[in-house]
Amino acid sequence: MEVRLSLFGFGNVGKAVAEVLLGKDFLFRKRHGMTFKVVSISDTSGTIWLPEGIDLREALLVKRSFGKLSAWTNEYEVYNLSPEEAVREVDADVVVDVTNDKNAHRWHLIAIKEGKGVVTSNKPPLAFHYAELVGEAERRTIPYLFEATVMAGTPIIGLLRENILGDSVRSIRAVLNATTTFILSKMEQGLEFEMALKHAQKLGIAETDPSEDIQGIDAGYKATILHSLVFGPKTFRDAEVRGIVGLNPENLKEARKLGMRTRLVATVEREKILVRPEKVPANSPLAVENNENAAILETDLLGRIVLKGPGAGPKETASGVVSDIIKAAKLLG
Amino acid sequence: MEVRLSLFGFGNVGKAVAEVLLGKDFLFRKRHGMTFKVVSISDTSGTIWLPEGIDLREALLVKRSFGKLSAWTNEYEVYNLSPEEAVREVDADVVVDVTNDKNAHRWHLIAIKEGKGVVTSNKPPLAFHYAELVGEAERRTIPYLFEATVMAGTPIIGLLRENILGDSVRSIRAVLNATTTFILSKMEQGLEFEMALKHAQKLGIAETDPSEDIQGIDAGYKATILHSLVFGPKTFRDAEVRGIVGLNPENLKEARKLGMRTRLVATVEREKILVRPEKVPANSPLAVENNENAAILETDLLGRIVLKGPGAGPKETASGVVSDIIKAAKLLG
Repeated sequence: MEVRLSLFGFGNVGKAVAEVLLGKDFLFRKRHGMTFKVVSISDTSGTIWLPEGIDLREALLVKRSFGKLSAWTNEYEVYNLSPEEAVREVDADVVVDVTNDKNAHRWHLIAIKEGKGVVTSNKPPLAFHYAELVGEAERRTIPYLFEATVMAGTPIIGLLRENILGDSVRSIRAVLNATTTFILSKMEQGLEFEMALKHAQKLGIAETDPSEDIQGIDAGYKATILHSLVFGPKTFRDAEVRGIVGLNPENLKEARKLGMRTRLVATVEREKILVRPEKVPANSPLAVENNENAAILETDLLGRIVLKGPGAGPKETASGVVSDIIKAAKLLG
Repeated sequence: MEVRLSLFGFGNVGKAVAEVLLGKDFLFRKRHGMTFKVVSISDTSGTIWLPEGIDLREALLVKRSFGKLSAWTNEYEVYNLSPEEAVREVDADVVVDVTNDKNAHRWHLIAIKEGKGVVTSNKPPLAFHYAELVGEAERRTIPYLFEATVMAGTPIIGLLRENILGDSVRSIRAVLNATTTFILSKMEQGLEFEMALKHAQKLGIAETDPSEDIQGIDAGYKATILHSLVFGPKTFRDAEVRGIVGLNPENLKEARKLGMRTRLVATVEREKILVRPEKVPANSPLAVENNENAAILETDLLGRIVLKGPGAGPKETASGVVSDIIKAAKLLG
């Protein structure tokens, strides 16, 4: 079975997806009976489009050498298409969105209506248009998959969507943002917020504009997606979100001495989406460190389940994207 | 969509399955568009069989009042059928095995060949005949599901089978038996093995014949099933298993003082199935208490994922069985 992919976004995650598809080509053929052919790649500079399939090795080389796909003019035509146009024109089975385009719901919807599967790690479409996107996909039985939007490739979405089908989930408590964990850990050691943030930026853990992470917006998007999945559609506007700006390191340090960790915790219950810094016992699954995210699910039959795993990183996010690509192909095939 | 079930085993787990199907009838209709009709129930006393569907409320009442289904002669004919005969004769969509029949692979195979889905919490069929059963089911695209064989309803099987599809699992380290955790915890407090075992038996945590648990056989079955699923078919005969008999409480107590817990740990890697008591740091995910099981997965893309949840209990096991029944129905429907 050959599956044609249209890849949107060729930053760190996009490159990691290409690397996994390239490096595991033989394995996926053997294990899943699937061959993936990337027929288009779009970055902010333009779209490379080749119905016979793009040489991913070369694409990665061009991107790494020149920083943009549009430099690749010796062999490939570079098209100047909006994502909407690219989704319409490129003949593909699955559209893969690893951009951070806040308006991507528009072209997700076009893809679904054209009968194309969608795999996304991009959160705003889900955090603002869940009902419309998932509803349309379900009506048309088109795969619309978004594992990598929450906890990167750690399969919290798959666990909730395709497993524990007989249980009713009562609540989810989770740490869903690794950047704030890093900053809070540093503050527990006594660093001022601004210093901790700068440290995170220097290490590439926080972005140049860190507002989505430190204001709790990223965690709020993720918590909203979990609510939509488990309890029914909501948008980010329904979420009550408080970030970590203004916290006092002395307070965190003191709490740490008493065996508590301060983490940005999301609580999701029916009709409730809450993100705020909370003190959790050091032996709680939520007292994560570094890159790790954690979710505690309370259900009626099982009681408590805990899932922990990486919550960020290109390879870790590519894991979720590629798993979804394989799932989408199975559902289409 | 109406799904006809043939239930084998009406002990604690079987009753819990019936209770969930009964209590969540309305929810499953709403959430999954499914109605479940139990057309036969077999216990060691006989088989109740009614193509129009058995009244589960009454079946539970009879079983609770008289201890056996064969007492139910005023309204229902009680048939004396072997499981093989029942599987052949009863017209059902899914055969549900919650017995501990060590020879159940025979009737699982008959069910698959007759085009019936199989859902099982019974371990020996999988631990000894995985290749044959799963192979036959795959050839015929019949659902053959076994979530509840490992970690009860905690969805370790679903996570490994239907998620992280792009990852290669390198190793699994897990605590898969709650009875030994209980006994070992008591021994860490200084109780002799025999006393700890008696305590567990009194509480109904260990069985009258506790050998499968304390000799590591139960954990070995589970580890074998995980190996078969992730790395390829093996049988329990390939497992290296050491139980907890003969451990010295002084040694465990001493380790505990040094911040270590002694647990029965399963290690599963390609071509390796090992179960033995090990000392793990108190802050390791494997340092579980009570009913909790834990698994640490190491994969190439994600690094480490941890899944924790209940590993035993009627309701907790029914969670896995019912989730699989819903999955089977979706696959058949």
